[in-house]
Amino acid sequence: MYANGDIFVGEVIGTALLILFGAGVCAAVTLHHSKAKAAGWVVIAFGWGLGVLAGAYTAAPLSGGHLNPAVTLGSAVADGTPWSKVPLYVAAQMVGALLGAVLAWALYYAQFAANREADKAQPTLGIFATAPEVRSPAANLVTEIIATVALVLPLLFFGKNEGIGIGQVPGADAGVYGSGINVLLVALLVVGIGLSLGGPTGYAINPARDLGPRIAHALLPIPNKGTSDWPYAWIPVAGPLIGAVLSGLVFTAVF
Amino acid sequence: MYANGDIFVGEVIGTALLILFGAGVCAAVTLHHSKAKAAGWVVIAFGWGLGVLAGAYTAAPLSGGHLNPAVTLGSAVADGTPWSKVPLYVAAQMVGALLGAVLAWALYYAQFAANREADKAQPTLGIFATAPEVRSPAANLVTEIIATVALVLPLLFFGKNEGIGIGQVPGADAGVYGSGINVLLVALLVVGIGLSLGGPTGYAINPARDLGPRIAHALLPIPNKGTSDWPYAWIPVAGPLIGAVLSGLVFTAVF
Amino acid sequence: MYANGDIFVGEVIGTALLILFGAGVCAAVTLHHSKAKAAGWVVIAFGWGLGVLAGAYTAAPLSGGHLNPAVTLGSAVADGTPWSKVPLYVAAQMVGALLGAVLAWALYYAQFAANREADKAQPTLGIFATAPEVRSPAANLVTEIIATVALVLPLLFFGKNEGIGIGQVPGADAGVYGSGINVLLVALLVVGIGLSLGGPTGYAINPARDLGPRIAHALLPIPNKGTSDWPYAWIPVAGPLIGAVLSGLVFTAVF
Amino acid sequence: MYANGDIFVGEVIGTALLILFGAGVCAAVTLHHSKAKAAGWVVIAFGWGLGVLAGAYTAAPLSGGHLNPAVTLGSAVADGTPWSKVPLYVAAQMVGALLGAVLAWALYYAQFAANREADKAQPTLGIFATAPEVRSPAANLVTEIIATVALVLPLLFFGKNEGIGIGQVPGADAGVYGSGINVLLVALLVVGIGLSLGGPTGYAINPARDLGPRIAHALLPIPNKGTSDWPYAWIPVAGPLIGAVLSGLVFTAVF
Repeated sequence: MYANGDIFVGEVIGTALLILFGAGVCAAVTLHHSKAKAAGWVVIAFGWGLGVLAGAYTAAPLSGGHLNPAVTLGSAVADGTPWSKVPLYVAAQMVGALLGAVLAWALYYAQFAANREADKAQPTLGIFATAPEVRSPAANLVTEIIATVALVLPLLFFGKNEGIGIGQVPGADAGVYGSGINVLLVALLVVGIGLSLGGPTGYAINPARDLGPRIAHALLPIPNKGTSDWPYAWIPVAGPLIGAVLSGLVFTAVF
Repeated sequence: MYANGDIFVGEVIGTALLILFGAGVCAAVTLHHSKAKAAGWVVIAFGWGLGVLAGAYTAAPLSGGHLNPAVTLGSAVADGTPWSKVPLYVAAQMVGALLGAVLAWALYYAQFAANREADKAQPTLGIFATAPEVRSPAANLVTEIIATVALVLPLLFFGKNEGIGIGQVPGADAGVYGSGINVLLVALLVVGIGLSLGGPTGYAINPARDLGPRIAHALLPIPNKGTSDWPYAWIPVAGPLIGAVLSGLVFTAVF
Repeated sequence: MYANGDIFVGEVIGTALLILFGAGVCAAVTLHHSKAKAAGWVVIAFGWGLGVLAGAYTAAPLSGGHLNPAVTLGSAVADGTPWSKVPLYVAAQMVGALLGAVLAWALYYAQFAANREADKAQPTLGIFATAPEVRSPAANLVTEIIATVALVLPLLFFGKNEGIGIGQVPGADAGVYGSGINVLLVALLVVGIGLSLGGPTGYAINPARDLGPRIAHALLPIPNKGTSDWPYAWIPVAGPLIGAVLSGLVFTAVF
Repeated sequence: MYANGDIFVGEVIGTALLILFGAGVCAAVTLHHSKAKAAGWVVIAFGWGLGVLAGAYTAAPLSGGHLNPAVTLGSAVADGTPWSKVPLYVAAQMVGALLGAVLAWALYYAQFAANREADKAQPTLGIFATAPEVRSPAANLVTEIIATVALVLPLLFFGKNEGIGIGQVPGADAGVYGSGINVLLVALLVVGIGLSLGGPTGYAINPARDLGPRIAHALLPIPNKGTSDWPYAWIPVAGPLIGAVLSGLVFTAVF
């Protein structure tokens, strides 16, 4: 069982790294004066997936590296993470997501500053939060639910391979990375979700990943930053949470 | 030995994940209003390969994660999977493939709906099933046979590395993923098959992967969906099954 | 120690898979009527690297999975592979390379056949063998020597990590894949060599990989196939062999 | 504890391989008469990351495979590497970086020679050293500091997973690759840093990686090579060193 202080520190640092890489790669392909300008979808999917690698394995010894309220919730439904720890995980993930968004903004400060050149100004919300290509609450919600099941269900089931795979630490929470190979599998799973399932809504699949940076976008002094699109903000929160509960229920039904 | 109920559940869930990712990535690069529109061949190959990662490691503790009648058949010929279990595996794979295709359609519902804009309508069969670039039954069959050997033969031989590799569960079926690293190798093998061998026919290499989603395509209410191309449908079934038998025979001859 | 029959069978099958994937990916991006037409350098580099994964791990339980006379020679100089086995390895690698080239041709038969459309005919040697962008024997030789050192030296040194890494089979030849993770590292090393060092000459780094398919190109009935460029053929043989000897000598000097 | 001679040899060879791959991939996408001309950002990020794989795992049995003064410094602040060894590590890394740059120049000799064709001449400093897209010392320094924290902090924290991951050699320095999977995680971490955080300055994140090849650029006889941009040279040295100290302090505060 992880100590409360370790959970908080681990989830803050890990989620901050995840968002630094994820918002970073979106800045890299979006903003002018970036060497990766318009580098394409494969860059975005690998940037986010390798952000999971960076954040999850950094946080693993402290908190198990959830980095995502949907992962924590799914693990709780599956009788892994104790329910009493869920608020702590989620609070730390939100703090980390905000911190990571600010770090990405600082790292790309000169590129954001150049956004005041009116003729080259880019909409910047897409660097921080997701938006649908076709705005349809029901369809967008279904997309986020299914995409989150495609994350959380495998993550829970992967943990059942311990008997035939590499040994996990005894007593580890369900859904936790037991070794380097497991964190790599989860990182590549997220790359795959991005490539395959990200087309309609940009695959939030993580309430903290979307809401934290959206708050940062609203607060940060970015020139020509455009709207923070609050009417959409509930979908990338509700969809992943519903998907997480469904995943936990399927796991419980099967095992 | 896996229990019958576990085999069924594992293969349904695992194959559904495989097709969700695979049909998903084809929808992502094909349909309008997708963020990954026209993202290219590397995206398709990694999307399918990481679908194998997602599905196979999820199914591994229940059924070994075959997800493919050609893998099951090759394993049976190689004296791994018992012949009595083959119909159960194949039936579950077909159910899973249908389910996965429906999930991919639901996830991309708004994009499919937009296909009714006549001027932007895309042919949609390629999202679900394979089609050759040059229509030549003999050549297409040879392509699918060789490409399937390039999948099943390595998969069977990889299993012989247990003595010098990471330990597999005692008594595991031949061709089964013994640990996280093995499922990663197989996923990357499928990425490689896509990149290298998918040019002529789109690499079915799996009868369930092609036939299940083709049936889904025929049944689903997609605007301007075009033909389901039944005259071609036997090739991505027959080719992989022939390739699987050849692979099993080579394995038996060598070991 | 591997048995002679196992070495022969392993190296034939493994090298055939390597060339099937490698020549396959070059056909995929070169020929008309291929879904991967013009898919770019990253596709080529991953196609070849994942061909190493397919071939090496398939051959590993039989022969150690060298697939390359330069690897065999470097291992022999480093006192790994016995000198008496070197001719057997090299002969099997040449047979496998020829076989793999024929399989790639058969898999892309309809695409090669379409090369008789004179207005779309592609030069086909690049599918089978390497060619320099700037023809300069001295510079091309230096390129192949350094690129081969970048393959064989790490491969030999990787083997020294057994004490701190995953256990290798006792008595395994130097330079042999001890587990799934090692074959993955070597496959990715070859991806990296392609991306970084392939620009000038197309990175043969393997005499069998170049000479075997070049012979196949000379023999196969391909329409408008163009020259087999024999004046260049000695460089992708000599360069890798020199690089292999240098790598073995550095290894011997250090350990 | 590594012997002094082993440290020197390991860091020279490992850093030389890193720079050979890294400067190599930049030459590959920059220079005319290269097969990878203009192959894009994903090629650059994977080329550098796989250079880490090649160099770090080659050097691991000798020196632990730091290849970067920032890694050595961070490890020393975190009480891993003894302070008395730091100058030796750094000196060897600088020698290795110079050697690697010369090898990359030799491998691409014919491409560099073609740079004398005045109408096609490319600026060549970008092949060897980094340069910012927006020249702003404060912003560029912040970028390099954060990007280096994103390398060194995870690297230090990854090492704490030994209890739940694959076993590391007892007594290994902090920040050292304990097995093949760890070197792969670090290599992919560097791919991710490139994709996500490289947009503003080209991610030096390593003083030796920037300064060594910059010196080589100043000395090598390259036609139309342009300036070596010495006024910028202090930022990719100072930024990574500051980031390394910060990472070590965070590590010490947490554990």
